[in-house]
Amino acid sequence: MNQATAADLPQVGALAPGRRNSIADVPGVTVGHCTLDAGALQTGVTVVMPHGGDPFAAKVPAAAAVINGFGKSVGLVQVDELGVLETPIALTNTFAVGAVAQAQIRHAVAANPEIGRAWPTVNPLVFECNDGHLNDIQTMAVGEPHYAAACAAAAADFAQGAVGAGRGMSSFGLKGGIGSASRQVPGGFHVGALVLSNFGTLPTLTMAGKRLGEELQARLDAQQAGPEKGSIIMILATDAPLDARQLRRLSLRAGAGLARTGSVFGHGSGDIALAFSTAYTVPQDADAAMPSVAMLHESRLDPLFHAAADSVEQAIYHALWLAQGVTGRDGHRRAGLRELMPDLPARLRS
Amino acid sequence: MNQATAADLPQVGALAPGRRNSIADVPGVTVGHCTLDAGALQTGVTVVMPHGGDPFAAKVPAAAAVINGFGKSVGLVQVDELGVLETPIALTNTFAVGAVAQAQIRHAVAANPEIGRAWPTVNPLVFECNDGHLNDIQTMAVGEPHYAAACAAAAADFAQGAVGAGRGMSSFGLKGGIGSASRQVPGGFHVGALVLSNFGTLPTLTMAGKRLGEELQARLDAQQAGPEKGSIIMILATDAPLDARQLRRLSLRAGAGLARTGSVFGHGSGDIALAFSTAYTVPQDADAAMPSVAMLHESRLDPLFHAAADSVEQAIYHALWLAQGVTGRDGHRRAGLRELMPDLPARLRS
Amino acid sequence: MNQATAADLPQVGALAPGRRNSIADVPGVTVGHCTLDAGALQTGVTVVMPHGGDPFAAKVPAAAAVINGFGKSVGLVQVDELGVLETPIALTNTFAVGAVAQAQIRHAVAANPEIGRAWPTVNPLVFECNDGHLNDIQTMAVGEPHYAAACAAAAADFAQGAVGAGRGMSSFGLKGGIGSASRQVPGGFHVGALVLSNFGTLPTLTMAGKRLGEELQARLDAQQAGPEKGSIIMILATDAPLDARQLRRLSLRAGAGLARTGSVFGHGSGDIALAFSTAYTVPQDADAAMPSVAMLHESRLDPLFHAAADSVEQAIYHALWLAQGVTGRDGHRRAGLRELMPDLPARLRS
Amino acid sequence: MNQATAADLPQVGALAPGRRNSIADVPGVTVGHCTLDAGALQTGVTVVMPHGGDPFAAKVPAAAAVINGFGKSVGLVQVDELGVLETPIALTNTFAVGAVAQAQIRHAVAANPEIGRAWPTVNPLVFECNDGHLNDIQTMAVGEPHYAAACAAAAADFAQGAVGAGRGMSSFGLKGGIGSASRQVPGGFHVGALVLSNFGTLPTLTMAGKRLGEELQARLDAQQAGPEKGSIIMILATDAPLDARQLRRLSLRAGAGLARTGSVFGHGSGDIALAFSTAYTVPQDADAAMPSVAMLHESRLDPLFHAAADSVEQAIYHALWLAQGVTGRDGHRRAGLRELMPDLPARLRS
Repeated sequence: MNQATAADLPQVGALAPGRRNSIADVPGVTVGHCTLDAGALQTGVTVVMPHGGDPFAAKVPAAAAVINGFGKSVGLVQVDELGVLETPIALTNTFAVGAVAQAQIRHAVAANPEIGRAWPTVNPLVFECNDGHLNDIQTMAVGEPHYAAACAAAAADFAQGAVGAGRGMSSFGLKGGIGSASRQVPGGFHVGALVLSNFGTLPTLTMAGKRLGEELQARLDAQQAGPEKGSIIMILATDAPLDARQLRRLSLRAGAGLARTGSVFGHGSGDIALAFSTAYTVPQDADAAMPSVAMLHESRLDPLFHAAADSVEQAIYHALWLAQGVTGRDGHRRAGLRELMPDLPARLRS
Repeated sequence: MNQATAADLPQVGALAPGRRNSIADVPGVTVGHCTLDAGALQTGVTVVMPHGGDPFAAKVPAAAAVINGFGKSVGLVQVDELGVLETPIALTNTFAVGAVAQAQIRHAVAANPEIGRAWPTVNPLVFECNDGHLNDIQTMAVGEPHYAAACAAAAADFAQGAVGAGRGMSSFGLKGGIGSASRQVPGGFHVGALVLSNFGTLPTLTMAGKRLGEELQARLDAQQAGPEKGSIIMILATDAPLDARQLRRLSLRAGAGLARTGSVFGHGSGDIALAFSTAYTVPQDADAAMPSVAMLHESRLDPLFHAAADSVEQAIYHALWLAQGVTGRDGHRRAGLRELMPDLPARLRS
Repeated sequence: MNQATAADLPQVGALAPGRRNSIADVPGVTVGHCTLDAGALQTGVTVVMPHGGDPFAAKVPAAAAVINGFGKSVGLVQVDELGVLETPIALTNTFAVGAVAQAQIRHAVAANPEIGRAWPTVNPLVFECNDGHLNDIQTMAVGEPHYAAACAAAAADFAQGAVGAGRGMSSFGLKGGIGSASRQVPGGFHVGALVLSNFGTLPTLTMAGKRLGEELQARLDAQQAGPEKGSIIMILATDAPLDARQLRRLSLRAGAGLARTGSVFGHGSGDIALAFSTAYTVPQDADAAMPSVAMLHESRLDPLFHAAADSVEQAIYHALWLAQGVTGRDGHRRAGLRELMPDLPARLRS
Repeated sequence: MNQATAADLPQVGALAPGRRNSIADVPGVTVGHCTLDAGALQTGVTVVMPHGGDPFAAKVPAAAAVINGFGKSVGLVQVDELGVLETPIALTNTFAVGAVAQAQIRHAVAANPEIGRAWPTVNPLVFECNDGHLNDIQTMAVGEPHYAAACAAAAADFAQGAVGAGRGMSSFGLKGGIGSASRQVPGGFHVGALVLSNFGTLPTLTMAGKRLGEELQARLDAQQAGPEKGSIIMILATDAPLDARQLRRLSLRAGAGLARTGSVFGHGSGDIALAFSTAYTVPQDADAAMPSVAMLHESRLDPLFHAAADSVEQAIYHALWLAQGVTGRDGHRRAGLRELMPDLPARLRS
């Protein structure tokens, strides 16, 4: 079972995945995890780095789509207004958002001591899902060291499944977590997705068009299907030159991929997507030259929209397939999809 | 072939349809068509009446979600601000929007001569898709008589397919048009959908999870798949007591149903949803009593969200199944899905 | 009285006006009017041309802010999505929007016969205010010839006051209409405003910080102050290189200028701003080269924000000062501000 | 000087203030401060309590308007989606947002131990301005005890000026901070405002229509006017029955009051307004009865819009007038307006 990889599963859609089939196929993007796995504490932090430099000094264009706003993410007000990121993107559990935001400020100040002085502020950007079923979220165990560890671990090769912020997450009544995938698009560009998957009720689970939820539900007989109380965070990266308006359009297509898995963007689910481009950066320093960039013509966006939807759908499948079962607080357990349906790859190919 | 009905197709999702399996299962809602079928003119008008009274005097709460805004609908600025409809909802072709809006004003003034006097204005509400492949849209043939005829024809029983505003529409390279469906939800409420379906590229067509597009494309060998240049308008009605904020949430779930058919909300597609409730009305007259209504508790919305997504998905299938092939301007033809795949009902049930 | 000019009034704010002190100080921008002045018909059309070429082939970046959405403008859904204009900007009365939108389509098709064929559609953009107090709006007298005449008349020098779309408008219980102003900003750029002013209740009128409304109200003793039922459309142009996100920010600052005149964005007032840049254009043709532009650094926007607010405030004063009194339907009359307070220039300077 | 009160200043607008001329004129609303005044630490926390009960169990309807989004407030994503508050409203400095959000979670869990268990989450709501000129914000000195102390201090009578979250704030180059005001509206209702004022460049300061900024600037000769890097948070409360859509409209009118003081919603200023109603509450428990409320007819909103704008303008004046000068980190000092212009009340009355 431990040898499972994303490559076990067939690829949805018409576009080819990138070499790694992960968000790191967008050159420069790296991902790091810090995982807490200690009895009732099953949680963590995941970071997505937009490039190898200082994200405050060299900001990447970005935009978000709030598909369902029952969520506690921080930083979106400023992203909406200014259209850029200025920190790594952090993912964690709902009650750790404040602590991770504080950690982001400290890191940014350490790298740029004029933040809070000549540079007034920095905008923390932290997304969350609620891992309270497996994790004793009330303990509020996540702090600055975990954010620092996740940043230090960032690399183009990274684990998926029950790791980092995904450690305690549940999806479709199964073990959820971190998944990633990518697609190549014309022009030599890439679109990559990383999801923190914590949404879904099992009877609605659909994979590559196959409604598998009810059969899986029957195998999990002790468990009732309740309303969707989870969330999903969907991060999209691309190396295509898009401005913030175009990135907002791209981010919304994450919802199309999400819907294919059975989601109706349930009331209790914070479904949020954010897209950024690495094609150029915007300097903090107003005296530095602004980038002169020819954006992609609007009518060339459709392949990127397909890539966004396909990458998100695929990334959710990777999260489910790669997440091993976890037992957490009060003996709560979420089974991994591989335990329940080890022949899933063959079934999806049939 | 002429005997095809919506009942031929299996029903998606877990909720039962209403008695008519159309938007008219929401009590009081009626639909009327006026169809132009004359050589190169293949177009029309469809209206959705929210209730049997004067929609200006007794306004229904409403809200919209612009999923992709490459569209020319009119009236949404005021719906967003004030949260009510005050005319019937009109659907037509892209170049007829202005004419139909003028007709709506004239009708409202005829019923309420103080509009433009003591009552300053009325807000026309017209949605559109572009039927220019089959219809000689440059002729701009639709006018006030067609709007009047559609209104006069409004009834709880109404045709689907290549009728009314749907006459000239294309969907997935096939004949599209008007479709409708409904679902029952707990509490004795209904959610109904009516779509004007003019979107989609054939290779992406997915029905009830089955990817049928490539097979259908092979049967249509003369035709190339190009980028999505169409649109879809999705009207949702419910008799559940929702306020405008909740109706906006409901309308967004139309996008989940749409995505299940293969759409990624393509760049060139104006994908717009509007939801209204018939549970109460808001008076034009400020001296009349405002309704005192207990809205549905937010946590009870999930069944309505499923009903919205399922009704929209189902309504798209009804539009495709019930639309007969049409030949229009310059000999352009769109085949009906029934011609190409008469065994579709059996295949969807398998 | 006929010799009144905008130069009579002092200039608000710290920035110097452009040479013409009008929106035409942005190079290439022109304005045209068609005025209907015939008894009960007191209305018209005004157009703003973003440049001298074909606005469909060479689109200018644009964005809007709906400050209060009790309005019937058309075209904003697509501007929000795609961030460009593709027609001249048209202004007219509320019940003429549909007719002018139809005229815009016909003009665009005449210039680009492939619209409605290979190029699917064009997005009409028509703003409106309600001139129903002076104008017999129910007659719906405006049509395509008036739009054509306004386009043909477009020039860098244009009249202000009770002309074009402003012919029948009322503002603060006085005669309103068209006003324009501009400001120079660092970098050699300009910001210009054109307003269609039809808002305000007289007791609240404030000019350059002076509350003049109550005194003016006393001079108009026959008239009661009622709720605000009007509207204002505020068009901003700049030659600074801004993208659509930045233009949205700029457009919102029109609200600051508006508020200084006494407005609280009243319930019944459709208060809408749109900003466009002439610094570059986006081609319709996807095979043409996209512009490579270095946008203005975000931290350099403040002077433009001041220029936007000041230009809008000043343009409202120009509209009021230059509008002569008009008598229209049913003997309704609006007095010009000059009649009531000829010493206004001196008072504003004191 | 210490005897200054809000009553020193004349009242703007036509509506009478409430008895306290503060947000606490809305029955049930209370305000509490915790102030840190220790050398380089000049900061604090202010809370606004919507009612005397548990805000999680009995949620008040609310909505926000982001006028300029260069800000780091948390909680608005969920307020936008669900239209309710479920914690007290907290105000603090930019780098303390995360710590105060964590404190809000702990307080909510203490009152409702099922949060993080059967009730999945609670939405912290924290607004901020940047007090880094006077306060050593990098120290990140604010924590849970300060939030607890502010909550414990909440009362209908509360201090204004350089207190609580306002301790270190600057406005127009002068000492800013907390201000509050209220207005009575027809129907026996109230609208109250509380601002955290940290915005403005001195030359633009306008009070009751009088441009006082340049004269004040001359008295502060050592200080240069730079770009606006501050922010303002504007909290509005009302006892009128409004739903979330109407409250969003109300919140936007805070911008009209703000503009009258000279603001153009500067690039670097996070200008955010939130409005809530105390007329009814929404239960957390889905099995409890939903309130049955007749909302105010839309056409009756104008007096509330005036009250919102006037209250915010007046509250800014109260903040400036009541704030004593403060010396903070690195010897930075902000003078109180009273020091520089003790005859301000007489001048505003002239």
